[in-house]
Amino acid sequence: MANKKVVLAYSGGLDTSVAIPWLKEQGYDVVAVCLDVGEGKDLDFIQKKALQVGAVESYIIDAKDEFAEEYALVALQAHTWYEQKYPLVSALSRPLIAKKLVEIANKTNADAVAHGCTGKGNDQVRFEVSIKALNPNLEVLAPVREWAWSRDEEIEYAKKHNVPVPATIDSPFSIDQNLWGRANEAGIMEDPWVAPPEEAYGLTVSIENAPDTPEFVEIEFVEGKPVALNGKEMKLADLILELNKIAGRHGVGRIDHVENRLVGIKSREVYEIPGAKVLLTAHKELEDITLVKELAHFKPIVEQKLSEVIYDGLWFNPIREALYAFIKETQKYVNGTVRVKLFKGHAIVEGRKSPNSLYNEKLATYSKEDAFNHASAVGFIELWGLPTVVASQVNNKTIYTK
Amino acid sequence: MANKKVVLAYSGGLDTSVAIPWLKEQGYDVVAVCLDVGEGKDLDFIQKKALQVGAVESYIIDAKDEFAEEYALVALQAHTWYEQKYPLVSALSRPLIAKKLVEIANKTNADAVAHGCTGKGNDQVRFEVSIKALNPNLEVLAPVREWAWSRDEEIEYAKKHNVPVPATIDSPFSIDQNLWGRANEAGIMEDPWVAPPEEAYGLTVSIENAPDTPEFVEIEFVEGKPVALNGKEMKLADLILELNKIAGRHGVGRIDHVENRLVGIKSREVYEIPGAKVLLTAHKELEDITLVKELAHFKPIVEQKLSEVIYDGLWFNPIREALYAFIKETQKYVNGTVRVKLFKGHAIVEGRKSPNSLYNEKLATYSKEDAFNHASAVGFIELWGLPTVVASQVNNKTIYTK
Amino acid sequence: MANKKVVLAYSGGLDTSVAIPWLKEQGYDVVAVCLDVGEGKDLDFIQKKALQVGAVESYIIDAKDEFAEEYALVALQAHTWYEQKYPLVSALSRPLIAKKLVEIANKTNADAVAHGCTGKGNDQVRFEVSIKALNPNLEVLAPVREWAWSRDEEIEYAKKHNVPVPATIDSPFSIDQNLWGRANEAGIMEDPWVAPPEEAYGLTVSIENAPDTPEFVEIEFVEGKPVALNGKEMKLADLILELNKIAGRHGVGRIDHVENRLVGIKSREVYEIPGAKVLLTAHKELEDITLVKELAHFKPIVEQKLSEVIYDGLWFNPIREALYAFIKETQKYVNGTVRVKLFKGHAIVEGRKSPNSLYNEKLATYSKEDAFNHASAVGFIELWGLPTVVASQVNNKTIYTK
Amino acid sequence: MANKKVVLAYSGGLDTSVAIPWLKEQGYDVVAVCLDVGEGKDLDFIQKKALQVGAVESYIIDAKDEFAEEYALVALQAHTWYEQKYPLVSALSRPLIAKKLVEIANKTNADAVAHGCTGKGNDQVRFEVSIKALNPNLEVLAPVREWAWSRDEEIEYAKKHNVPVPATIDSPFSIDQNLWGRANEAGIMEDPWVAPPEEAYGLTVSIENAPDTPEFVEIEFVEGKPVALNGKEMKLADLILELNKIAGRHGVGRIDHVENRLVGIKSREVYEIPGAKVLLTAHKELEDITLVKELAHFKPIVEQKLSEVIYDGLWFNPIREALYAFIKETQKYVNGTVRVKLFKGHAIVEGRKSPNSLYNEKLATYSKEDAFNHASAVGFIELWGLPTVVASQVNNKTIYTK
Repeated sequence: MANKKVVLAYSGGLDTSVAIPWLKEQGYDVVAVCLDVGEGKDLDFIQKKALQVGAVESYIIDAKDEFAEEYALVALQAHTWYEQKYPLVSALSRPLIAKKLVEIANKTNADAVAHGCTGKGNDQVRFEVSIKALNPNLEVLAPVREWAWSRDEEIEYAKKHNVPVPATIDSPFSIDQNLWGRANEAGIMEDPWVAPPEEAYGLTVSIENAPDTPEFVEIEFVEGKPVALNGKEMKLADLILELNKIAGRHGVGRIDHVENRLVGIKSREVYEIPGAKVLLTAHKELEDITLVKELAHFKPIVEQKLSEVIYDGLWFNPIREALYAFIKETQKYVNGTVRVKLFKGHAIVEGRKSPNSLYNEKLATYSKEDAFNHASAVGFIELWGLPTVVASQVNNKTIYTK
Repeated sequence: MANKKVVLAYSGGLDTSVAIPWLKEQGYDVVAVCLDVGEGKDLDFIQKKALQVGAVESYIIDAKDEFAEEYALVALQAHTWYEQKYPLVSALSRPLIAKKLVEIANKTNADAVAHGCTGKGNDQVRFEVSIKALNPNLEVLAPVREWAWSRDEEIEYAKKHNVPVPATIDSPFSIDQNLWGRANEAGIMEDPWVAPPEEAYGLTVSIENAPDTPEFVEIEFVEGKPVALNGKEMKLADLILELNKIAGRHGVGRIDHVENRLVGIKSREVYEIPGAKVLLTAHKELEDITLVKELAHFKPIVEQKLSEVIYDGLWFNPIREALYAFIKETQKYVNGTVRVKLFKGHAIVEGRKSPNSLYNEKLATYSKEDAFNHASAVGFIELWGLPTVVASQVNNKTIYTK
Repeated sequence: MANKKVVLAYSGGLDTSVAIPWLKEQGYDVVAVCLDVGEGKDLDFIQKKALQVGAVESYIIDAKDEFAEEYALVALQAHTWYEQKYPLVSALSRPLIAKKLVEIANKTNADAVAHGCTGKGNDQVRFEVSIKALNPNLEVLAPVREWAWSRDEEIEYAKKHNVPVPATIDSPFSIDQNLWGRANEAGIMEDPWVAPPEEAYGLTVSIENAPDTPEFVEIEFVEGKPVALNGKEMKLADLILELNKIAGRHGVGRIDHVENRLVGIKSREVYEIPGAKVLLTAHKELEDITLVKELAHFKPIVEQKLSEVIYDGLWFNPIREALYAFIKETQKYVNGTVRVKLFKGHAIVEGRKSPNSLYNEKLATYSKEDAFNHASAVGFIELWGLPTVVASQVNNKTIYTK
Repeated sequence: MANKKVVLAYSGGLDTSVAIPWLKEQGYDVVAVCLDVGEGKDLDFIQKKALQVGAVESYIIDAKDEFAEEYALVALQAHTWYEQKYPLVSALSRPLIAKKLVEIANKTNADAVAHGCTGKGNDQVRFEVSIKALNPNLEVLAPVREWAWSRDEEIEYAKKHNVPVPATIDSPFSIDQNLWGRANEAGIMEDPWVAPPEEAYGLTVSIENAPDTPEFVEIEFVEGKPVALNGKEMKLADLILELNKIAGRHGVGRIDHVENRLVGIKSREVYEIPGAKVLLTAHKELEDITLVKELAHFKPIVEQKLSEVIYDGLWFNPIREALYAFIKETQKYVNGTVRVKLFKGHAIVEGRKSPNSLYNEKLATYSKEDAFNHASAVGFIELWGLPTVVASQVNNKTIYTK
């Protein structure tokens, strides 16, 4: 009787490498799949390593453009700052990886999909809900969650099965990275009173080591999408990666966050999002001059919901499409250019302009050019304040009445 | 027949000084009232100047403590970032000033209250709605809005009525300040493509001029209220003013914002909030470890509403009390200490601790101490994802089905 | 010198008839425009009457279909119950009327547009904001608000200018109607302790007079739009008008509401919405089986906002389009049939079915067919409750600990 | 070695009666606890039955007043209509029952608490999260979920252990009841196209059988709490029970709802809430005249959240207290009397009056008494519409420009 087949999300690291012989022991042929979503992996090496530790097939997929255009762009336009601090890094790549895994599973006629997540993180939820949404007939396996080994036990198993144990095995950190950013946790950072150590960071210099001279970038947006950097048109994935470099060398985009995971615990995470930080800041400022007030005041409600939906692994729930339909409609007029000063960890917007700017200098000015009708204010104030005034009168909340 | 009496919000500046003879011409005896809400005014000088230019009485009131305890504290605990950028400066002091004006009007048996706002700002709304809510029988006068003079006409009138014209009359800026921050607008800043000039700032050094060595502060909170700075207990007004100095010298808290005014226009404003920025940042981080997830995810909805309510001049509307009742209830467990690094314009929280911390290292850790039940995740994920999965199945949104 | 030209929203009633000679006296040639949005007017009579009382041109426009397809349908799909009670009647027709007025104004090269609203209602806001949004160069006139006559003065003026005074002039009510419903206010209803008199109603019988036998209707929806009634395909305007008759004879859809107007006052209104009530009820029930939980829980937030936006006269603000983009996306799967029992003022949904139903009898059943995995609940409950339990433990809110 | 001790939520029905011998077999002494929250149980009989089938102790607790004052009142003041249809019945009693169970467990030094819920409902979540929040050291047992028997297997076990099998065992329904209402599910109702059968109802007559003459009640509220019915002061529990009778005989308060359960499935439920329906309707109408507009428009956001929090079993999460702090603050001025007509299934508010009414006839009237300043509207409209108009101009959304 033939083996069952499992498609494994393969990173090249210890956990998913050990998973290959382990899955074989459970009776599966393993198809390894490794995606590049902008973390700068050596894909060839990873592809070979999978085969070397026992996979029957090994796929590598460059998904940078799809990730930028369909996932990172949503986070940018919707300002998806989870809990006002975490701009979604891993949460964005998981649904795309799940989609690719299911595509390979369908193509290779596989019975199951496997991921390398533990039982206490958010990513297991994101993977499993996405996979089941895309093909409910696939079994989902979580070897790391299931074997529940200590690090020592895992290394012992690796050695026994000829899985190379990396030299960095002593690193206390647990890292995930894509072009939108880098997440790091564990080790000393588990104590929220202790500052994250410098070695926890990988994409940014410290403010102390940032140059003493600022650098300026101009970003051009068309319908809420960055299309050019310093006047040069670039596709989005390249633009983000380029900005990661520029902003990273100025120490922009470090985040230290104690966040609420979906699985019910608080966890301390360190993020680096140099390019994303610049883009998110610039995009918001462009919206400040192009979105009508009523939209500007309601969009954050939609943004917060969309952040939670994506964080919580519900990318393939219909609510994501409906929330994004709102966002997309708002972006029609988000056209223009933003000038950003990068300096000592800051991304400071110094100027913004737009053909769709609703900022009207003639209405705003205090100079002689003033076109605003000051007399209108009297009637406005009377009716605007009427409910407040009536409530005070009726309920005797006035201080005293002459 | 006796003159009517008007209580004037008096700042000592040109507009409200000119308003005194102008109001007299309209048949009013003018009672000048000047509040100190932390802007560091020379109150004695202002008190005398009012009389000198024609007021019949002149009051000065030190309202710093009341402002800190009952207004700034609300903004701190509710993170009232209007449009995610402006933490409410003038919007906070207006209702308190209105309250004091009405108290003096009641005490002096006045017929009217007057303020120095123009017809295109938010402050006229805040003053008038508040005054009418506190005593609907008082007439409200807005001399500056009414006379609608050019600067030259105003100066001419001033000279004719022996009102001293200050040397700084050429300053293009329009400034308001209290202990929570400083607002500045007009002049070159009316062009949103141009960076604000260095002389627009008054409370902070530039990042370029900030020291190359960081400074650390520890802030202790009790029920969401800062009670000690670097281990020294201080009353809130003093703590904020002290932090303004410390953070100001590190360039912390500059904000450049194109915002939507209540009166329907967009306006570019520059704010400085050195102390407030430190406190708001620290307070949020303390909430990150002390608020239960469900509260942490809903409080921003209340915060945004409260920001708009205060910005829009509705401090004395019952909704403010109801929203704050929610906020106050959330603050019970916001106790603890936050360590902040001030450096090159940043206020970076490096550590936070609390007797009420809900961060549980035993649950969060990836070490051997792990107390989290990984097996629970399986059932959780299944039910959490069930609506998404059923929706996919029913509506054939699965990629393909084996 | 030639007269200026004004396009008048003409209803055929006393106010707008008197407005014609009055506008002529102000130096305008008057172009009368009367829309039929389903109130069952005698358009020919109205067209002639306008010319008879002095209009230079008189247009009549049958806008029922456009009103049904592009305005009423939005209210239906978004459940726009303003303050949970008023499903928007006049608020829906105003933007369409404004649009038609501006179209005629542009076509006839007019200088101004006029409406017959008073100064205390919402409709003046809806008209004026819509007109200005569609053509900011048009002057807007509000004769009734401007002349500020008593009823007697108006009648006197009417008689002097040969404007026929209707026999029903003594009616205390102020009525507006379209195919979505009928609004009535004023007279005895201004006392909110008094029940509305029977003569206040025009589209529905009283419950007392409703038949003792129920009537059943089946409504079929495609993508959230009603397309057939009792198996018979109908265009939307006809379907609503037909349902008005059927449901009206069963006393369905009376509403008695004290509402908050945009202009700051509370006002008591009586509405009748027989057809709309049936459709809104049926549509919600169809959504109950076709919307995924996450959408069902967020859509009301969007609905409430959209209700306020439309009520507040902001139909042509970009926020309306963005909110509707969300709504439209949700409607894709709102397909199916709903069976409604009309009886004694009730529209009771007795059955609903859909090819996109997410109600899964196999998951829901307590019979032997049960396909739900009961064991999953254990893990789900543990993680779902974890934040609550940790918060209780930390903050000693447990009753007592063994 | 001594047995462990478990406190069992005992209803007297088959499931929890069978649970007693079953728990004994697992090595527990069973302490039975039965609460009366208004369902009209024969408590003495139940107390004895528990002992008869094997409990070592049997408690009965009359919790009607606590339930009315601290649970039902919250639902009333917060209009907690889950998914706009279900006003929380079982969801309200579960936290109170859990609290009493934990109190008895602490008092009797028990090791565990047990409930009779299955694995697919909401109640298991409500019980377990509440119990763990109140005493995390208690083990929670769910015998019915664990044994997973068919009905036949359960009956067989019952007979073997001398547990009386009720004659109504063939009833297909699953019923829960308290003074706030009655919930019913299962059987034929699992098909959402089929109307619920008449025998599914227990508290209300059908509309067909309701009297042909209406009945009127007047309810008096003090700070949002009903204190008198038809002029007679009553404590809340009695008032609700009395209203259940009166409104029930007029067929008021039947609800047929396909709802989203927390555990991820849709389920069809039938509710009866005669008294609650009258109170909720009356309370909303009193708020319509006493809440200031800004509160009236934000309270529904808080209400919806609170509905979900309670539905989802999070009564003891700090968010419930914070949300209720908001609600409580809003109720200060909700004083007054509401007159309700009960007729043919309707609870129609015909009149409402309040010493705190913000409805001002002088402002609202169209008669000569009008005190509203119509001229103020002009300035109001101009500024209110300004963002919309500017957005149209800038983005060329005007129809055409003269």
